[in-house]
Order: sequence, then structure tokens, then C-alpha cells
Amino acid sequence: MKDLRICFIGDSFVQGVGDPEYLGWVGRVLQRTPGEVTAFNLGIRRETSEDVLRRCRREVLPRTKPDADNRLVVSFGSNDMVEEDGALRVDPARCLENLAAVLEESRSQEISALVVGPPPVVDAGAGHLRRTRELADEMAGLCLRREVPFVAVTDELAHDSTWTTEAMANDGAHPRAGGYRRMADLVLGGPWLEWLALP
Amino acid sequence: MKDLRICFIGDSFVQGVGDPEYLGWVGRVLQRTPGEVTAFNLGIRRETSEDVLRRCRREVLPRTKPDADNRLVVSFGSNDMVEEDGALRVDPARCLENLAAVLEESRSQEISALVVGPPPVVDAGAGHLRRTRELADEMAGLCLRREVPFVAVTDELAHDSTWTTEAMANDGAHPRAGGYRRMADLVLGGPWLEWLALP
Repeated sequence: MKDLRICFIGDSFVQGVGDPEYLGWVGRVLQRTPGEVTAFNLGIRRETSEDVLRRCRREVLPRTKPDADNRLVVSFGSNDMVEEDGALRVDPARCLENLAAVLEESRSQEISALVVGPPPVVDAGAGHLRRTRELADEMAGLCLRREVPFVAVTDELAHDSTWTTEAMANDGAHPRAGGYRRMADLVLGGPWLEWLALP
Repeated sequence: MKDLRICFIGDSFVQGVGDPEYLGWVGRVLQRTPGEVTAFNLGIRRETSEDVLRRCRREVLPRTKPDADNRLVVSFGSNDMVEEDGALRVDPARCLENLAAVLEESRSQEISALVVGPPPVVDAGAGHLRRTRELADEMAGLCLRREVPFVAVTDELAHDSTWTTEAMANDGAHPRAGGYRRMADLVLGGPWLEWLALP
């Protein structure tokens, strides 16, 4: 049996903040992935693409093994698109550069990557949703050019009543178990298994 | 509500390797802890106390927040006590020094710590169990002197038929969901809630 190791790096949604079952979408995707996976959840709440890029190499490499099938799942952007003191935390162009840098680094280490788009932050307003949606589209294009699979979730979750209801009843951003289940469905319904089957 | 952040650092047992539900003892303890916890699982399989000490500061600090209630749960030792090429991977005295160093570092950063003893490695033989048990006793003494809560699990799990049966049916070391549930019971039945209630 092949030694499959997947690092999931990103923000609070990767971490699964708000889920009383402490699985998040990551745990739910793993539960429904055939075979055994050695998984590492490297989500940190509040982090932008800048923060993730800064620690990516340092934290992912000690979790790989030379003879294993090493993989990386990346998901960020929702925090980048938040306005603080009248400016975006991270500019979209910069966020895309950061994504490109993470993917480049991953490729140079022969770690196959997959990108999950940024979930919506329900109480952040229409401007935030528009920016996040545009960012997600740009991310999809970047991934396509690099032949890296991309899972779109922004609009899908913004229109999902389980996600939005749970988020609003919680802290305005993070759903409970049901919302994360929907997000896991999107990942599993996308290129997930096909990507894992690639040599 | 206080912002409780707990980093769990250690080896494959912390990571929950072998659990098809991808919760391990860490996820099960969190599910049964009242209130919301921002949790970070920093377990890495095969790691000894040396490996954990090396990355502890670097990985824990970015996951703390100045105004939050930051905590650290440490668990290692089973891999230290494994013989490779006729020698222990890490000497018991050195393992204890490493534990002391992790606890000292944690204290200097005002991060309250709790230690969970090393689980048995079922197929590693009687010598490994004896060494791990002795190491666990020394760890308990070290924690007592430093007023750090310690949860003993070595003997308890070595005599638990769920743990041993699942481990032997799996890879000889890691249980499935049932064994991790037993380990979570030991943690929850120990000083866990009392420790979390401390200011």
C-alpha cells in the first residue's frame, strides 16, 4: 500500500473553526477517502496568503518523506479580501503571486498540489463576497495554466442555506458541522479522487 | 467567552494515525471538552522527543495569540524507546532533558502545559514496554516537580484489550477508533478539565 501523506495548509476554514465535531471539511474529506491517509492539518485562523507562504516550506517539508506520495492542499484568500483600516489586508494581485509562489515551491519539491478556493465570509458584506468571488476566478485561471486542480467553493457556499444559516448563528463567518459537510461534498465532488489517483 | 487555544505536539499517537474517523484521542478529547477550542494538531509520526523539541517553539508560537489563553499538550517517548541498530533511538535521560526543555520554553512563553505519557507499542515486545513504562514514571516525577499535570496511559493501554486487539489487527502499533476512544477516556478522566479551568 502506498504511503500517502497530505498536508492541508491555510486559514480557519482549513482548521475547521466552529465545528463542534472537530473535523471541519478536511476531516470529513479524509473520512470519505478510500485507503489510509497520513494527514496534517496546518490551518491557522486569521492567516492570509502572506502568512501561509511564509511558513509553508518550513512546516510542510518536515511532514514529507522521501519515499512517500507527498501531497499539498492549499486554501486561503478569504482573509486577504477583508478590509482593515480602509485597505485590503492583502491585494488580490499579491494574493495570486503568493499562490503562484506556494505552487512553485511545491512543484520544485515534487509535492503534487491541489487548491481549494476561498469560502465566503457571510457577515462581511456584498463587497467582500464580490472581491472573494473575483479572486477565486483568478485563482482558478492560475491553477488551470499550471495544471493544478482547483475546487470552486465561494459562490456555491454563499448560496448554500446550511452554510449561511450556520455561519450567521455562529460568529458570522464559520459554520458548524453541516456547513463543513457541504464544503467536503464540494471537494469530494470535484477532482479529489482523480487527483489522488495520479501517480 | 475566553479565547482558548491548544497546541497538541508529539508523535503518531497525537496525530491519530490508524483512526479511520480521523479524530484520534485529540479530536475525541476536544469533542467532549465544554466550550469552543481553537485546536492545532502538531503530531508527526516517527518523531522522537529530539524532533519535537527542535520544532516546538517554531510551530507553537505562530499559533498563539498575545491576548488568548494559550495552552500546550505534549506527548512523546514511545519512539525514543525503540531500538534501531542495537541502540535506543533516544536515551531515557536525554528524553527527560528534552521534556524539561519543552516545559521550560513553554513556561517562559507563559503557555500552560500538560503532558500525556507515551502509549505502548504493542508489537515492540516486552523490553520496549518495560522501558516505556519506566520512562513514563520518570516523566510523571519530572512533571510533579514542575507542577505540570501528567496523564499516565502506558500501563493502562498495554492492559486494555481494545487497544491491543486493534493495534495488532492494524500495524502493530496504532489502534483504530476504539483504542483512541480509550485513550481519550484516560485524558478526560485525568486532570484535563481541572487544568483547563486554571486561570
